[in-house]
Amino acid sequence: MIIIGEKLNSTVKSVRPAMENYDSEAILDLAKKQCEAGAAYLDVNTGMFLEEEPDRLEWLINIIQEEIDTPFSIDSPNPKAILKGLKANKNGKPIINSITNENERFNSIMPLAVEYKTGIIALCMDDSGMPETVDDRLSVAESLIEKLTKEGIDFEDIYIDPMVRPVGTGSHYGVVAIETIRKVKLEFPEVHIACGLSNISFGLPARKIMNQVFLIAAMAAGMDGAILDPLDKKLMTYLYAGEALLGRDDFCMEYLTKFREGELEI
Amino acid sequence: MIIIGEKLNSTVKSVRPAMENYDSEAILDLAKKQCEAGAAYLDVNTGMFLEEEPDRLEWLINIIQEEIDTPFSIDSPNPKAILKGLKANKNGKPIINSITNENERFNSIMPLAVEYKTGIIALCMDDSGMPETVDDRLSVAESLIEKLTKEGIDFEDIYIDPMVRPVGTGSHYGVVAIETIRKVKLEFPEVHIACGLSNISFGLPARKIMNQVFLIAAMAAGMDGAILDPLDKKLMTYLYAGEALLGRDDFCMEYLTKFREGELEI
Repeated sequence: MIIIGEKLNSTVKSVRPAMENYDSEAILDLAKKQCEAGAAYLDVNTGMFLEEEPDRLEWLINIIQEEIDTPFSIDSPNPKAILKGLKANKNGKPIINSITNENERFNSIMPLAVEYKTGIIALCMDDSGMPETVDDRLSVAESLIEKLTKEGIDFEDIYIDPMVRPVGTGSHYGVVAIETIRKVKLEFPEVHIACGLSNISFGLPARKIMNQVFLIAAMAAGMDGAILDPLDKKLMTYLYAGEALLGRDDFCMEYLTKFREGELEI
Repeated sequence: MIIIGEKLNSTVKSVRPAMENYDSEAILDLAKKQCEAGAAYLDVNTGMFLEEEPDRLEWLINIIQEEIDTPFSIDSPNPKAILKGLKANKNGKPIINSITNENERFNSIMPLAVEYKTGIIALCMDDSGMPETVDDRLSVAESLIEKLTKEGIDFEDIYIDPMVRPVGTGSHYGVVAIETIRKVKLEFPEVHIACGLSNISFGLPARKIMNQVFLIAAMAAGMDGAILDPLDKKLMTYLYAGEALLGRDDFCMEYLTKFREGELEI
């Protein structure tokens, strides 16, 4: 699993003050902990700072890469912020989080991915909104993949996000997400799937349970990446167990190692 | 989900003394608790009593049905014990647990299922043993389903058990079980899938985690029945969350109700 650590996000209440106060120590601590816990990418988001977003993003990236070389997931719909992030970046190949099939957003962000040879998270939505059915989502994914690869982006650099909607607002939304994942992965085995987990449980009680269950069902359908909190030990426990169950952890070695290290929360 | 409560089993160490001592109170307590926790069937197994198995099974069934009318899953490979159980049974349509495609076992148990119009759990194995691959398991399932329906047993009365092997002894066994479930359900939508969960985690630490993860992945693949311990609140919590996620719980009503009743273990 490609884990994109989600904590360094200005929309997260507990994290925002560290960004507001340019508290580089707290930022670095959170960055390091996520890497130690298995993050392959560090998502960085300063969207809550509005017009200051690009400068704040540059600061955030610079602070982190002084001490850590984990690549970034540059999380913004704003091409100016993304560009500033890409220019600042020295941590290897980043991911842009994210593009959609909305014309304006596609045309403003795609050239950045091409020029800077980045990975890119592509959300299954377009100018008509968020598609309802699996087939409509698949169509948007196909269109995005076709257009991105035509521009020279490799299949392996595309991360499809099926756009998870809360199962509490529609009983079919879990199946829609899971089946979209399965079909995209079947049609494009080299393309990655990476989605946020927590939207599935929005509005429900015991959200963590539902997020864990979605993680497993999505992994079983072929999801090989996720934007999540790697410091959530329980979630990571299910992730390791899922990898072992699904034959992605030879001889269950990682699962056994994590158990021995006391990293599984039982 | 069709839950087959697994506790009344002579191989379970904590339960065996109650059977040995004809402790009807303890037996009834365990039976009632399982029904209250959602068991649609009560598995009854007295195999550890060897030649006394048939008489012990008759006693067990009689004790329970004096006060409880939940149907039984008569758990034995021994036709004599099964017959005694079927003759004693007054709790509606039972399930025979289990038949295989081994010639002798098939031919000795199939007539009982036909005569007593029972449901039947059919294990994916035959005289050549337990098949290694998904396709070989599917072939055994197809053969069993064809032979059973030819004898007049309805598709809805067949419960296919893919035969789960421990993922600790082969990294592919989780995928084999999950994909067998998916293919059987795709080919025979009316046939049920019912398997035991705990074999998947044999030999591994943190077995409960692995069992929960397997439950979710198997449900996502189409498993609609399971032989499990309904008194395991954590496992049941994942089961309810799984049903909600997979659109089998309209408006998440059961999940929300269980939460409000304090039945979810978070």
